[in-house]
Amino acid sequence: MNVLWIMCDQLRFDYLSCAGHPTLETPNIDALAARGVRFDRAYVQSPICAPSRMSAYTGRYCRSHGSTWNGFPLRIGEPTLGDHLRKIGVRPVLVGKTHMVPDRAGMEWLGIDPASPVGRNHAECGFEPFIRDDGIHPDGPLAEPELSYNRYLRENGYGGDNPWEEWANATEDKDGSAHSGWLMRYNGLPARVPDEHSETPYMTRKAMEFMETAGDGPWLCHLSFIKPHWPYVVPAPYNDMYGKDDIQAAIRHDRERDGDHAHPVFRAFQQSRICRGFVDEAVREAIIPPYMGLIRQVDDQLGELFAFMEARGMMDDTMIVFSSDHGDYLGDHWMGEKDQFHDVSARVPLIICDPRSKADATRGMVRADLVEYIDLAPTFLDAFGGAPLPHILEGRSLMPLLHDRAEPEAWRQYAISEYDYSTRYARIALDVPPEDARMTMVCDARWKYIHAEGFRPMLFDLENDPLELNDLGADPAHEAVRNRMYEALCAWSRKFHTRITVPAALVERNTNVEVPGVYIGVWDETDLKRHFPNATPQP
Amino acid sequence: MNVLWIMCDQLRFDYLSCAGHPTLETPNIDALAARGVRFDRAYVQSPICAPSRMSAYTGRYCRSHGSTWNGFPLRIGEPTLGDHLRKIGVRPVLVGKTHMVPDRAGMEWLGIDPASPVGRNHAECGFEPFIRDDGIHPDGPLAEPELSYNRYLRENGYGGDNPWEEWANATEDKDGSAHSGWLMRYNGLPARVPDEHSETPYMTRKAMEFMETAGDGPWLCHLSFIKPHWPYVVPAPYNDMYGKDDIQAAIRHDRERDGDHAHPVFRAFQQSRICRGFVDEAVREAIIPPYMGLIRQVDDQLGELFAFMEARGMMDDTMIVFSSDHGDYLGDHWMGEKDQFHDVSARVPLIICDPRSKADATRGMVRADLVEYIDLAPTFLDAFGGAPLPHILEGRSLMPLLHDRAEPEAWRQYAISEYDYSTRYARIALDVPPEDARMTMVCDARWKYIHAEGFRPMLFDLENDPLELNDLGADPAHEAVRNRMYEALCAWSRKFHTRITVPAALVERNTNVEVPGVYIGVWDETDLKRHFPNATPQP
Repeated sequence: MNVLWIMCDQLRFDYLSCAGHPTLETPNIDALAARGVRFDRAYVQSPICAPSRMSAYTGRYCRSHGSTWNGFPLRIGEPTLGDHLRKIGVRPVLVGKTHMVPDRAGMEWLGIDPASPVGRNHAECGFEPFIRDDGIHPDGPLAEPELSYNRYLRENGYGGDNPWEEWANATEDKDGSAHSGWLMRYNGLPARVPDEHSETPYMTRKAMEFMETAGDGPWLCHLSFIKPHWPYVVPAPYNDMYGKDDIQAAIRHDRERDGDHAHPVFRAFQQSRICRGFVDEAVREAIIPPYMGLIRQVDDQLGELFAFMEARGMMDDTMIVFSSDHGDYLGDHWMGEKDQFHDVSARVPLIICDPRSKADATRGMVRADLVEYIDLAPTFLDAFGGAPLPHILEGRSLMPLLHDRAEPEAWRQYAISEYDYSTRYARIALDVPPEDARMTMVCDARWKYIHAEGFRPMLFDLENDPLELNDLGADPAHEAVRNRMYEALCAWSRKFHTRITVPAALVERNTNVEVPGVYIGVWDETDLKRHFPNATPQP
Repeated sequence: MNVLWIMCDQLRFDYLSCAGHPTLETPNIDALAARGVRFDRAYVQSPICAPSRMSAYTGRYCRSHGSTWNGFPLRIGEPTLGDHLRKIGVRPVLVGKTHMVPDRAGMEWLGIDPASPVGRNHAECGFEPFIRDDGIHPDGPLAEPELSYNRYLRENGYGGDNPWEEWANATEDKDGSAHSGWLMRYNGLPARVPDEHSETPYMTRKAMEFMETAGDGPWLCHLSFIKPHWPYVVPAPYNDMYGKDDIQAAIRHDRERDGDHAHPVFRAFQQSRICRGFVDEAVREAIIPPYMGLIRQVDDQLGELFAFMEARGMMDDTMIVFSSDHGDYLGDHWMGEKDQFHDVSARVPLIICDPRSKADATRGMVRADLVEYIDLAPTFLDAFGGAPLPHILEGRSLMPLLHDRAEPEAWRQYAISEYDYSTRYARIALDVPPEDARMTMVCDARWKYIHAEGFRPMLFDLENDPLELNDLGADPAHEAVRNRMYEALCAWSRKFHTRITVPAALVERNTNVEVPGVYIGVWDETDLKRHFPNATPQP
């Protein structure tokens, strides 16, 4: 049994044909969903790369692992999925992106040399890098001195300081004039590299290379694509596979940006330079077709990968997981990028295909159970039959949902996602101190409640307003719902999130156990004999 | 400048003559208070040894450092006061107890050899042990194979497997018959060792030894007595220095144990074997006089220590701090031991004497400002002029309160203390799952609010009911107070407690800063020039 864990970057939940996108075709991903389970209500633990990924890689909430924003390191004391897998004899192999930022301060005071095996393992987030590729964000001295994909591009004749930027993520006119991929106006033009040399096929081939050489012994391969993340540049023919007519109308309403009614933090995000850059229809028309092309390219590559695996008889003993680290507003809700908690940002695709016969009952199911991405690590450990850990994971294995059509008893009632906007423009605009620039989303089967410290909450009725256009956070008629959701938030917040050792099973074993040699609260010899028949204190 | 940080174990806030005890005399501690500031409303972060100490040693709440009960280890990733002091050239020296339990699971997966310098430093909680002595609780393989005090006793002719138990903590009748110190009935008899060989003088002499050999260079010496912690055994003449008439009436009311009105968790604690063992008046009469004797012995030893320091000119350049890790119910509130949040358990003595002239304004002051023990680490760092840390401490320096009679602006409005009763009898009695067996105390200038997951709160009006005999937790007249205190609890719970790197100052520096080489949200060349005048993306 092996696990292939595919992750896209910035792929929205609704940009797959199996998730209902009317014009985008993703036949290979759809086929995977048909063979497995598609979780339709999966939320990331933060709608931003590093925190979301660190939650997926540790099985713990952002407040628990400490990496609350990009560049805020994962605590040196946080074990990862890779650490756990290695303990049970499974190779945790990385092909692609992790966005891991090591805790240099923590390593320094602990006396861990960043170049030592322990330091390197931490810097690799517990993975064994077959190839690590964080795109344009190689993380300082511990990352490879040069992006491997840049090295590859150079070997194939694409020169310059940063061929990633100059070729793969740049576009070219018919007349041969080149444009930076940062200029969205030109994003619909083809990339300056052909399909085979672009990033997604490169990474897919690396996964195949790994599989060819993996040998016996179980592995988990985390194939972590950088796309469809911006720059929204894709090679031909994907760049014009979709056009203006394939774009869905922007999900937004004037009320959402009405200064008198819009939530102040949401409004401040809309007003940031970046979000303002995504609102014009011209921008949407320039970037959404290549965004769709990038997804289609991923799908085609997965088709190749699955065929490769099929040919080698690997489909029967490989659990395949398809996921994404967060969504992309693409101008919806007057926003660009991610950061806030609307479904287009915090809700993500999740498909799991367990090839074993015990999963036959659920093939093709679309499940509405609330899933959090912290569930992935425990699911993988469960898939490999891992023993209970000495560390506390906060997610729960999805195996019961993969093997049984019914919802397990006592499944979670609330999903949580967090966002730390302390380094964002909105904090300055709103004059919020760094430590209070926190938002938390709590959603249940029907309601989504968003708490922002120091402000009124936001509230959406996902049943009657699935597009989340009508914020009920100040509506007097919904006070009871808000109170209930606030209580859920506070109950979750009050838990111990830091403790990683001493899991519940160990507590149970140690409950009401007397400390050997300690006989406190004893009056005399009779009392001693009564309570501690075997005690022989001296004298 | 040096710091002498004295800590007692299990010393209540009200068992000092300067704190108003009518029959106990503590002239040397009183004199220290007269030269410094006595903080009259100091709370520990947990009314139990290890969690309380770990908070004092890290400057962080229990939920932040992860050690929520005795034996639940301090996370390997938590830096301590000692680590911080060493960085600024100050020796953090330990003489006595820490109750530190190393994170063996964390070290193992990080690949840290427990015997390596990093492993040893962690196991010593960041201190440089001049002598470590956790009493009867030496912590496994990393602790010294034998208690140093036991070695000392043996050298002085007290034999047996555990002379700590057989001699120092055992008592002797006039007729020579010996009794275990565990049998409280005999605790009023003298110890089987004379004063000079008992634990407090031994530890005091060790502190003097350290000071004699310390040489130049700043140090913090943590002189950490095990007494007046049980067994309540003290040598002559302290054993009968106080008698039945010196005991204060038990602070308790029948209402507190009335099954219909008492708080369920509080009541379950009362019903535990240990607490039942402390309720009889005979027990109180047997243990409180030696408890007082143990405190008097500490005071006498401090007299000797201060004279020793005076004779060597050390009083002028040594900040002296007197503290305790939690209190002792001694039968009050129908309880023994500590564990719950009444003042006799969670409120502790704190005296700080800063010899520098800038502290002259506050000498002899008794301050009612709310102080938490997590304030000690930042205070010490401040005393040594330490630079801002790359790690987040949650306490705040008390220096402003030591140098100025006014309360600083924006001082804390609430003090917090936590208790994890997951391993206690009460959890079983109440059928609470391990992860919910949590209580949190929030108090302000007047009210003390205690939240227990799944139960109604407790509430005390400290102004009109300073003895905390009237629980208003279910009183309809106090709903508004309870709501306010609950909100304070939840606001505190919602904070990020895990993150230790990226303090606010670093966040400020990184707010709204663009990532170099990333030009997201840009439409065209004009837009690029406008927003990023110096950008030169390729091509």
